[in-house]
Amino acid sequence: MGQNKNKLSGVFAPVVTPFRSDELALDDLRFNLRKLDETDLAGYLALGSNGEFKSMSDKEQNRVLEVFAEEKDNKVVIVGTGCESTKQTIDKSKLVFEMGFDYVSILTPSYFARQIDSGTLRCYYERIADSIDIPVLLYNAPGFTGGIEIPLQVVLDLSRHPNIVGMKDSSPVGPAKFLACLDVEEDFHVLAGSANFFYPALHLGAAGGVLSLANALPGPCCDIYQLFTEGKYDQAKKLHSRLARLNQAISGTWGVAGVKAAMGITGFKGGQPRHPLRTLSGEAAERIRKQIVNEEYTDNRKHHDIGG
Amino acid sequence: MGQNKNKLSGVFAPVVTPFRSDELALDDLRFNLRKLDETDLAGYLALGSNGEFKSMSDKEQNRVLEVFAEEKDNKVVIVGTGCESTKQTIDKSKLVFEMGFDYVSILTPSYFARQIDSGTLRCYYERIADSIDIPVLLYNAPGFTGGIEIPLQVVLDLSRHPNIVGMKDSSPVGPAKFLACLDVEEDFHVLAGSANFFYPALHLGAAGGVLSLANALPGPCCDIYQLFTEGKYDQAKKLHSRLARLNQAISGTWGVAGVKAAMGITGFKGGQPRHPLRTLSGEAAERIRKQIVNEEYTDNRKHHDIGG
Amino acid sequence: MGQNKNKLSGVFAPVVTPFRSDELALDDLRFNLRKLDETDLAGYLALGSNGEFKSMSDKEQNRVLEVFAEEKDNKVVIVGTGCESTKQTIDKSKLVFEMGFDYVSILTPSYFARQIDSGTLRCYYERIADSIDIPVLLYNAPGFTGGIEIPLQVVLDLSRHPNIVGMKDSSPVGPAKFLACLDVEEDFHVLAGSANFFYPALHLGAAGGVLSLANALPGPCCDIYQLFTEGKYDQAKKLHSRLARLNQAISGTWGVAGVKAAMGITGFKGGQPRHPLRTLSGEAAERIRKQIVNEEYTDNRKHHDIGG
Amino acid sequence: MGQNKNKLSGVFAPVVTPFRSDELALDDLRFNLRKLDETDLAGYLALGSNGEFKSMSDKEQNRVLEVFAEEKDNKVVIVGTGCESTKQTIDKSKLVFEMGFDYVSILTPSYFARQIDSGTLRCYYERIADSIDIPVLLYNAPGFTGGIEIPLQVVLDLSRHPNIVGMKDSSPVGPAKFLACLDVEEDFHVLAGSANFFYPALHLGAAGGVLSLANALPGPCCDIYQLFTEGKYDQAKKLHSRLARLNQAISGTWGVAGVKAAMGITGFKGGQPRHPLRTLSGEAAERIRKQIVNEEYTDNRKHHDIGG
Repeated sequence: MGQNKNKLSGVFAPVVTPFRSDELALDDLRFNLRKLDETDLAGYLALGSNGEFKSMSDKEQNRVLEVFAEEKDNKVVIVGTGCESTKQTIDKSKLVFEMGFDYVSILTPSYFARQIDSGTLRCYYERIADSIDIPVLLYNAPGFTGGIEIPLQVVLDLSRHPNIVGMKDSSPVGPAKFLACLDVEEDFHVLAGSANFFYPALHLGAAGGVLSLANALPGPCCDIYQLFTEGKYDQAKKLHSRLARLNQAISGTWGVAGVKAAMGITGFKGGQPRHPLRTLSGEAAERIRKQIVNEEYTDNRKHHDIGG
Repeated sequence: MGQNKNKLSGVFAPVVTPFRSDELALDDLRFNLRKLDETDLAGYLALGSNGEFKSMSDKEQNRVLEVFAEEKDNKVVIVGTGCESTKQTIDKSKLVFEMGFDYVSILTPSYFARQIDSGTLRCYYERIADSIDIPVLLYNAPGFTGGIEIPLQVVLDLSRHPNIVGMKDSSPVGPAKFLACLDVEEDFHVLAGSANFFYPALHLGAAGGVLSLANALPGPCCDIYQLFTEGKYDQAKKLHSRLARLNQAISGTWGVAGVKAAMGITGFKGGQPRHPLRTLSGEAAERIRKQIVNEEYTDNRKHHDIGG
Repeated sequence: MGQNKNKLSGVFAPVVTPFRSDELALDDLRFNLRKLDETDLAGYLALGSNGEFKSMSDKEQNRVLEVFAEEKDNKVVIVGTGCESTKQTIDKSKLVFEMGFDYVSILTPSYFARQIDSGTLRCYYERIADSIDIPVLLYNAPGFTGGIEIPLQVVLDLSRHPNIVGMKDSSPVGPAKFLACLDVEEDFHVLAGSANFFYPALHLGAAGGVLSLANALPGPCCDIYQLFTEGKYDQAKKLHSRLARLNQAISGTWGVAGVKAAMGITGFKGGQPRHPLRTLSGEAAERIRKQIVNEEYTDNRKHHDIGG
Repeated sequence: MGQNKNKLSGVFAPVVTPFRSDELALDDLRFNLRKLDETDLAGYLALGSNGEFKSMSDKEQNRVLEVFAEEKDNKVVIVGTGCESTKQTIDKSKLVFEMGFDYVSILTPSYFARQIDSGTLRCYYERIADSIDIPVLLYNAPGFTGGIEIPLQVVLDLSRHPNIVGMKDSSPVGPAKFLACLDVEEDFHVLAGSANFFYPALHLGAAGGVLSLANALPGPCCDIYQLFTEGKYDQAKKLHSRLARLNQAISGTWGVAGVKAAMGITGFKGGQPRHPLRTLSGEAAERIRKQIVNEEYTDNRKHHDIGG
């Protein structure tokens, strides 16, 4: 248990996949990973929602993973492998295990929404966890699945599976709901999926967070975790407010296109989102730039160099 | 500002309306209020969702308010007055002001859902707040309105209105979203609408909470607020987990019928919910009783006598 | 059976309630009813969604009904009496019966959405239908109830109740779903709730329609029914397309405010919707006027004088 | 125009993909296609929702298409190629064109739901239609996309694109909405996506239907189209009711698993759905068998041999 607890504590960046003219820009991905390697981030989520994994072919996903394998340094790497069928998800997860990554994060299937009930989800995750050697994180993200969520009782049951070690929850409801009910003795760790509720989730027992903002502002994202662990709650609360406002202006308003624009502002290479997602207009990017400058330079200037 | 801040801090009970054979049981309401008067609750919400205000005629609502007027003792009383039209809401709010209550809590209209956009909601609240002398709390409760929510920018704008002094938010998303963006200098106070997220909301700056659980367990609900204000976060977190579990088993599973059943267990007179809501089966009520006993007697026994 | 079948066949107008400065304009209502009395409409729905029944106090609703009682001439009158509680709905329905109206149309409760399942809805309608002497129409309108719908099996079961004689369905899915499964021997009649699907619903066995457009254009609405009964399907289909386009531009875009604006154009007195609903801008009303003129004078000129 | 109109008229089967132990059972697919080749079906949809295209890897999808290429006989073949990104969709569509198929059906992207607005959808379809040589059908299926729909104005605009020749609509709202507004002079043809509303959609101008029921009961599905074209509306309406009831019991209740079970009953080889979808229990399959027998032998026995 101690090992997973350690590896899953702190801040993870759901690393974006840069594109140029709708083609993979793997040199930009490499650049970003090298820069992120130098931060205090606990690790990376590869092929997550912000990684636009649903917008790539199977082959392209593999090419992205090869870059992670080469550039991950000593970071923990979680890889998103959730597909619509159990078979696909197992096949991808086995490949990920062979490539030496640490965890798989498995999104709920959602296409046949009316058939996906508690029983379906329980069977899905059990069969996968039984079939692979790499430990599993559940991934709950109703905003991306048309509302499909893993019910509380299913999470509680699955938390006892020896190969299911945690959960990434991008629903604002989830961490509070699950953390109150999970058995604290279990080797099961919750990662909050957004800067909007990362800080309060820490107060409820979350191990860490997977924060899209950490692509552009890894420093402040790590700081808030550090302030929390040091019990500096007043400072943490103020930093939380700033990051939550930024997150709403960036990811909350524009999704991954906003994250990529913010990365360009803070010294990373975000590139474009893949069509039909749209690159931000110059005006929208400028608003984000102003807000980043504004939030950074209010009351916490020395603490955070932009971009970590 | 200080006055509203003081009056809106702490725990409020959204007091249920007891029925017998589908008729108002005002003697039971009186009994409950007298018992609640002796607790540390900051006050009451009359005619809220848990008060089944939508299930009563205009006349019945007035009879309920008369009991509150007589039995409120020194508690702060918020009254729910939100109707579908501005005219109805103003008329009810004026009546409530004349009866001497402290605040009105105004739910978003929702029937003509497709027409209710930012502009409609802004105009609705502004015209009401301009027309009445009693201070206004916005009431955001997408779970009861088919998903209608007050957008962030509308809340921010309305927070500057001199007669709009706060917000009750029953959406689990809301407190985190709004509290990060509100100007802390404004006389505008957020009440978390559920024990599921009351404790983390306090860490984000919420003034208090309106907790259905406080109908049955006012003592523990007040304790968690007290522990928070004293900085005893470890104890608070544990108590939060217990109350959140209870809340999910009671209100989360059964709604107001569950709250009424729990009240019967802890010495209050919940009565029946009004048809077509169903009274809990004996078996379901017994499960709630066991869970109350179980949560109470685990690690915090001396601290909380059931029922305050 | 024959009697209900006869009375519920054809086109009904869900008569709007005119307001002036947010007060009832009953003289305008009277004017409209007298004009509608002269059309081929089968009857009226009083206090329906388009009648803004949710936006009026109990007293105001009674005043509206008094006008209907005086002006209904020989038209069949259905009255909307659905409230959140069984008690309220029964009380209103009894009053409506005493006033001499023909049917009540009872919307599903929706406020306590999570508690409203098949069993709740079945009990709700059964208890009401057992308690009143006026025959009942179910009213299915998920667009107004945050998605609450009466499940197919509940409709089939209730269709056998001797005092439940039909259903108004405003869901575009409903008529097709229910009409295929209902026992054609039952005294149970389906009214389509929108000009968008009135014509295809007739082909599936609907008895008639409750069409908001009939407030402004009763003539063409009656024509389409007439063409259908005469087997003139080519003409009916063309008229359907025109009315469906108009309906989307009026009710589909603006709701009751659009219907009221259209009424002003075709010689009725729509008045304003009640705040917070907004009166159409002059520009928006002009677009509706142009579209009415345009649809009327394309290929069916002689047939339809605007306004019936 | 005439050519597309001809090719897209009538009934299409969205052919299921049989699996055995979660592996492709292409021999069963071949068996089914050979049997379907002998029916009056206008053609097939390969890799549609019922084809479980989302549950297969890119490679597996290609293997399925190879069987269609070999066994399609003289049937028109539409292939589902919609992915989340424009690039993926174009790449797949080009491959499909090279393989000699007739049309691509392109589902709306839905993963980044909050970013998918009118503009995104218009750009998505325009760029694709401009980039490929195979004609495009829009595919609107909010039940599979968490509610994402193509707005009316976007459909109207795209209907004028020379390489966009129609739309498959699985929303019960869609055909009525679009057919009333489309310019009948355009080379744009609507296929109703369900037996629930195929027959009324024909009355509104739909060219044909893509009916999951046609996998198991191609004969009756073709009959209803035939009866409509012959103006035998009374018979068509009765057959519609029977097929709609069957469809609700099979596809409406169980999705593709129900369709596969029904195929086993009528002489096809449905196989299993891919995990986590569940194979029907023997009891559930038996209920479907009884209902098929029951509907078939009521009043239309001679007309329809089960299974075409």
